[in-house]
Amino acid sequence: MRVIETVDYRRGRVRIIDQTALPSAERYLDLGGPGEVAEAIRAMRIRGAPAIGIAAAYGVLLAIERVAGAAAYLFDHAEPGRPCSLPEGADAGGLSRAALEAADMLGQTRPTAVNLFWALDRMRRAVTGAGEDAAALCAAASEEAFAIHDEELDTERKIGEHGAALLGDGARVLTHCNAGGLATAGYGTALAVIYTAREQGKEVRVWADETRPLLQGARLTAWELQRAGVPVTLLCDGAAASLIASGGIDAVVTGADRVAANGDSANKIGTLGLAIACARYEVPFYIVVPWSSVDLDTPKGDLIRIEERDPSEVTEIQGIIIAPEGIDVYNPAFDVTPAGLITAIVTETGVIRSPDSGSLAEAARIAGISPSRKPPRNP
Amino acid sequence: MRVIETVDYRRGRVRIIDQTALPSAERYLDLGGPGEVAEAIRAMRIRGAPAIGIAAAYGVLLAIERVAGAAAYLFDHAEPGRPCSLPEGADAGGLSRAALEAADMLGQTRPTAVNLFWALDRMRRAVTGAGEDAAALCAAASEEAFAIHDEELDTERKIGEHGAALLGDGARVLTHCNAGGLATAGYGTALAVIYTAREQGKEVRVWADETRPLLQGARLTAWELQRAGVPVTLLCDGAAASLIASGGIDAVVTGADRVAANGDSANKIGTLGLAIACARYEVPFYIVVPWSSVDLDTPKGDLIRIEERDPSEVTEIQGIIIAPEGIDVYNPAFDVTPAGLITAIVTETGVIRSPDSGSLAEAARIAGISPSRKPPRNP
Repeated sequence: MRVIETVDYRRGRVRIIDQTALPSAERYLDLGGPGEVAEAIRAMRIRGAPAIGIAAAYGVLLAIERVAGAAAYLFDHAEPGRPCSLPEGADAGGLSRAALEAADMLGQTRPTAVNLFWALDRMRRAVTGAGEDAAALCAAASEEAFAIHDEELDTERKIGEHGAALLGDGARVLTHCNAGGLATAGYGTALAVIYTAREQGKEVRVWADETRPLLQGARLTAWELQRAGVPVTLLCDGAAASLIASGGIDAVVTGADRVAANGDSANKIGTLGLAIACARYEVPFYIVVPWSSVDLDTPKGDLIRIEERDPSEVTEIQGIIIAPEGIDVYNPAFDVTPAGLITAIVTETGVIRSPDSGSLAEAARIAGISPSRKPPRNP
Repeated sequence: MRVIETVDYRRGRVRIIDQTALPSAERYLDLGGPGEVAEAIRAMRIRGAPAIGIAAAYGVLLAIERVAGAAAYLFDHAEPGRPCSLPEGADAGGLSRAALEAADMLGQTRPTAVNLFWALDRMRRAVTGAGEDAAALCAAASEEAFAIHDEELDTERKIGEHGAALLGDGARVLTHCNAGGLATAGYGTALAVIYTAREQGKEVRVWADETRPLLQGARLTAWELQRAGVPVTLLCDGAAASLIASGGIDAVVTGADRVAANGDSANKIGTLGLAIACARYEVPFYIVVPWSSVDLDTPKGDLIRIEERDPSEVTEIQGIIIAPEGIDVYNPAFDVTPAGLITAIVTETGVIRSPDSGSLAEAARIAGISPSRKPPRNP
């Protein structure tokens, strides 16, 4: 199931959903060149580390598309193997220069998005390794860009399948922030679990924390679930504890920005409180991530640096001032949930129950992942 | 210490701070008649059950003040024993009629504020019991109105003293919602504990949860503490758990809307999550209330009906829409913290540690409070 066209390459254009217009309008933009893609990333019209990586790769492909000067479009993700009909005498050198310039420019858009740099490096290697033939260069670049997208989709589908097995028919699931299709290739991580369970015919319904300060739950998760036809109820973050205490929730499922080698998981601020409530009332608490978010080089959670963000995120909501001028603000972006509070971590390779250093190392070994691999991380 | 002039009777006028202008402006209104007081209550320019009760009593006094036709003002809370200089031949019947009409009109302003009806009943009894002499009626009415105010202040001062003994020098205290001077006679319940500890020379500092959906923490608590010179840091509700887990908080202190006979306490939504985090990380969790909020006729917390409020409180912030149209919303106004998670309940008669049916009944007995007394409650 493709839930949302977060980002895709269609008939020589990069199509994205404009996330700055959500939830009031569902607006799609067809970006015609790498500069437009860069602007969309910078303005957060597209956000979420995996989605940004894909968009950047497609930005490089757009640079080739524009320079090649073909009569019709060259590339389309719906026709990945389609031969490129380049004009006579197309110049591989020119295409390569345009692609590499675009990659450099796109790399300047967001400072901390590791997937962005990783995707652009893959595109650079594909272009420079293609040799002197323009058609070969086009084939290599489009294969790589579509592979980045398809691998991400494949990861999300596998995550969804492993996670869905944890939910029974009629499950009432609470989630926090947006680990959905809008942050990824259109399917999500935590929300992939929901979507897959429903594809399997399970009547899953969702409670979405609004997730202050930036309200990703209210603006994005509620929107994408509603649009996908998943029954969803929005609540303030402070209302989750009593809902869990009352027996109204069967499982809490969230993403994570980074999982340490012992299973401690950093996720959006507010996650720890949910995990504590789940532990008290014996409700399963699941973290759902791609292996790229597992950082085997960080032994435990208290070594993860927690970014403190601008006070205005708390004192203003969309320009409306809600607090006294000059007030001190504590605004951490993330908190760390200790592994002991996590029932299981779900990745594309399976479910790691009672996560700790031993079970994570064993799962990594089976999956063929070594600590030195330094995979890209969702910042 | 009088922290805020939430409401007072000054030189023939009811002076209130306009809470609808906070936190952006500190604006005081001098209300000249009972109709203006009613409008201020209805428009929530003044809010909080104790504050509304005092304002209503003062509204009745204003009716007498306006009808009496004195050359100068008749009443002033700063001069409670001042003799009334009534015009010759002032008519006790006219004063009484005006007072009782005002009481009926003021009783229509807010449907659930028990303190409002209780204060108006006291004023009615004072007026009707004063007999045929205009001066005696004026004296009885002003004594009663000032007594309602002074008793509330006295309760808050005693609460502050009992609670302050629980805080050490340098204490870092987290609070939720507004149990401060803006809801009461100017001193507060939970915040009275802070103010008193600081008067005693203790360097107490406060972390204030913003308290979604209505943001009383950001708009009111942060404002009144900042204005009183108390160091205060604002945070989103979801950030409290990690602050407590990190050892950054020495005690959580909140008010309650209603305490059951076994100590279970209903308070603003989000309180339960704090209590659960405190229990896990062994941080004291205190509930601070006047005895008027203890409901000895309700055996336990799960018998307290929890009001669900309008979805627009969650989906809109000051007119800005932050969620998709038509989304389902779960918006309970309160949650119930079980007595087992409460370190102590503080009232004007002392500190009840490890509250349960036995310790609360014993404290009530010593204080001379019987279940059948049916005291007014802060709704």
